[in-house]
Amino acid sequence: MKEFELDKIVNICKQSGFIFPGSELYGGLANTWDYGPLGIELKNNLKRLWWKTFVQERINSYGVDAAILMNPKVWEASGHVSSFEDPLMDCKKCKMRYRADNLINEITKGAVNADQMTEAEMEQYIKENNVKCPNCQSSDFTNIRQFNLMFKTNRGVTEDKSNTIYLRPETAQGEYVNFLNIQRTMRAKIPFGIGQIGKVFRNEVTPGNFIFRTIEFEQMEYQFFCKKGTDENYYEEFKKIGLEFIKSLGVEATKLRFKDHDKLAHYAKAAVDIEYLFPFGWGEINGTHNRTDFDLNNHANYSKKNQEYLDPETNEKYIPYVIESTYGVDRIILCLLCDSYYEEQLENGEIREVMKFHPAIAPYKVAILPLIKKVHSEKALEIYQSLSKTFSVIYDEAGSIGKRYRRNDAIGTPYAITIDDETIKDGLITVRNRDTMLQEKINLQDLESYLSNKIIR
Amino acid sequence: MKEFELDKIVNICKQSGFIFPGSELYGGLANTWDYGPLGIELKNNLKRLWWKTFVQERINSYGVDAAILMNPKVWEASGHVSSFEDPLMDCKKCKMRYRADNLINEITKGAVNADQMTEAEMEQYIKENNVKCPNCQSSDFTNIRQFNLMFKTNRGVTEDKSNTIYLRPETAQGEYVNFLNIQRTMRAKIPFGIGQIGKVFRNEVTPGNFIFRTIEFEQMEYQFFCKKGTDENYYEEFKKIGLEFIKSLGVEATKLRFKDHDKLAHYAKAAVDIEYLFPFGWGEINGTHNRTDFDLNNHANYSKKNQEYLDPETNEKYIPYVIESTYGVDRIILCLLCDSYYEEQLENGEIREVMKFHPAIAPYKVAILPLIKKVHSEKALEIYQSLSKTFSVIYDEAGSIGKRYRRNDAIGTPYAITIDDETIKDGLITVRNRDTMLQEKINLQDLESYLSNKIIR
Repeated sequence: MKEFELDKIVNICKQSGFIFPGSELYGGLANTWDYGPLGIELKNNLKRLWWKTFVQERINSYGVDAAILMNPKVWEASGHVSSFEDPLMDCKKCKMRYRADNLINEITKGAVNADQMTEAEMEQYIKENNVKCPNCQSSDFTNIRQFNLMFKTNRGVTEDKSNTIYLRPETAQGEYVNFLNIQRTMRAKIPFGIGQIGKVFRNEVTPGNFIFRTIEFEQMEYQFFCKKGTDENYYEEFKKIGLEFIKSLGVEATKLRFKDHDKLAHYAKAAVDIEYLFPFGWGEINGTHNRTDFDLNNHANYSKKNQEYLDPETNEKYIPYVIESTYGVDRIILCLLCDSYYEEQLENGEIREVMKFHPAIAPYKVAILPLIKKVHSEKALEIYQSLSKTFSVIYDEAGSIGKRYRRNDAIGTPYAITIDDETIKDGLITVRNRDTMLQEKINLQDLESYLSNKIIR
Repeated sequence: MKEFELDKIVNICKQSGFIFPGSELYGGLANTWDYGPLGIELKNNLKRLWWKTFVQERINSYGVDAAILMNPKVWEASGHVSSFEDPLMDCKKCKMRYRADNLINEITKGAVNADQMTEAEMEQYIKENNVKCPNCQSSDFTNIRQFNLMFKTNRGVTEDKSNTIYLRPETAQGEYVNFLNIQRTMRAKIPFGIGQIGKVFRNEVTPGNFIFRTIEFEQMEYQFFCKKGTDENYYEEFKKIGLEFIKSLGVEATKLRFKDHDKLAHYAKAAVDIEYLFPFGWGEINGTHNRTDFDLNNHANYSKKNQEYLDPETNEKYIPYVIESTYGVDRIILCLLCDSYYEEQLENGEIREVMKFHPAIAPYKVAILPLIKKVHSEKALEIYQSLSKTFSVIYDEAGSIGKRYRRNDAIGTPYAITIDDETIKDGLITVRNRDTMLQEKINLQDLESYLSNKIIR
């Protein structure tokens, strides 16, 4: 297994039907991507597993699905209107636009950490060190100006400030503004958690690395409401839970690490990332944050509505602390694609490409392959009808069996079954394992339970 | 069972945790709604069943998940930039704003069909018939001006026309622009279909009726690509499929009807709605449209890229016809809520409120009720851990068993199991059926298969 570049994964995604450039027909729209037939199955499987783990199986866990368009006061209370900003500067010569912090971080290869600098310090550093424009090599930049990352639009017929609304830049506020609604209707007792999966939007100026940073992406996140004083223990617990979930998807443990934040966000008491070693380096795929009572306090202040929880046993009233566990769906998908991709040289010299997806997340669970088209198709289609009630399956009758095996290896289908004369005569089918390439004969009537045992979790 | 108003359903939704007003803490954001813990389970179940029926079980069916933000040329090609508009007029006296067509339709109670009128005809009708402002009763309106329903935003740092993009007003274009990507990567042969579930946005000026018409909603839609000449048969087939799916969710057949469109959209050769009889009258929940080759032709023209399919058997090249089957997710949810709500008077005079959801869509499948708190909680929690791996379940130990049964009736939990001394001693549990209220004793070890047989489909 050799090292590979991200471009290799991007090409596989385009060529196999995982992910296409967004609006490709019209030359694209920078940093948007469309999930194709394989990509959406992968994503649905991931989201289902997350929901099962965080919402369904955990007691005192509840889901929510808040609107993307929220009252703009939400974003005043959360601090996003005033401080969800990037420090931008333009090259005066070639007019290219950069994030000042990225410019410093990249040019110093991380030796200097611009995340810790103020605006003035960044300007000074760029001047004193004669930092060059990566495009035209001149050293003449404008001063920094702050650019808010929220996409704006207008509700209603007129387009003025009075009806400006935002596309949400994070899902978490949906849980906070519904905290008491959910607590009340579900008669929930602290500690309890609320989970949400949904789209968020950020008008990123310097995005990139395929689906790692895009202007539109999905979050899966869990907000755990607990009493102050218990927050530090729960923070440690959710760090572990955050890692366990990623490992449970089959991701190689040596490519995962914790990374504490150097600089805490305005709302956080403690924050740690889980990073994965992508072909382009370590990148964040999960965050655990101790958000304290910052958000609920702010919502109480801005809305002038009490956000306190009443403990039914002690009659104590308080605003709980919040531990957040958040995943970028698209980043986990990229992690799974990079982590599963595998090449091996077979004895005949041929290169076999495999996506070694965990069966639970593989887009298709089983490939159904009639040995000879027409002769075995009818029986194979019958099996398709039956298996597809339980599993996502793919039917393929074109080309040699060997070719069809390779095609399914390349898209990560963990099992392939061949239908031949023996199937029709004796009800026996051949099941071939993607990873071992071993084949075994089993009885057609045992097929569903054979597969269920291996695939469903 | 008596008639009820929509408000009754809205209140139940708020009080039980199905659906809350969006951004309620800040006085709301008109016509946005947040799905609470019960609502999101219901919605997830619906979406999963649709995906299973339309994408997973149908052979030659593929999913896609296109970005919400698309290159604006997509919306020029589709006709949305030029003609996705509402005819608005303002009352000069009180400044209220109306859709001219709605004003005429409502005032004439449908006796006149404004959908068939031109702009000039509507203005003339309103003047000649002295139509009054429903708010202030004056008859002095501005002329009609057309208002585009797409939400606009800006990509990148500057806010000018050159970087205006739109929030998609329909998901279907995501399939059209990816038609050849998907056909090629999946080696799909016509006829085949592409399904998608996703959010869309419409800056509606006169929305309403709870989640029936909102500014942000979800579509589940299937685009079926077929050869011209076969389109009329497939149109009839998808009309039937469209209805079958709704019936399979348990919706009362007498409250469903087909309604052919009086006025066809610019892209359609034939179009029919399925309407449900809501408390406020008949309303569309599904549409089947013969969109011909309109969209693919337009994309070929606008993108200057050939969109023809090459038939591998006949070597014929052609742009296929498209039959669309589309559901409004939120409208189906509203239909399920209205259709399932049921009140009955018991012998003791008490009113029992029930949501008679089909078990496959019910938010929780099983309520787990320890007879006596603490005494039976440990065993009950053990059962929770085990059952929650397969089903969405709810644990409830507060109040009398009768009260807990009622609570679960009201949120539509089809089964409730009681854990008592007999469970601990002999492994027997009581299963109570929501609809019949009958109870039976079964063995704990048979519970999962007992429930699976009744619930999973």
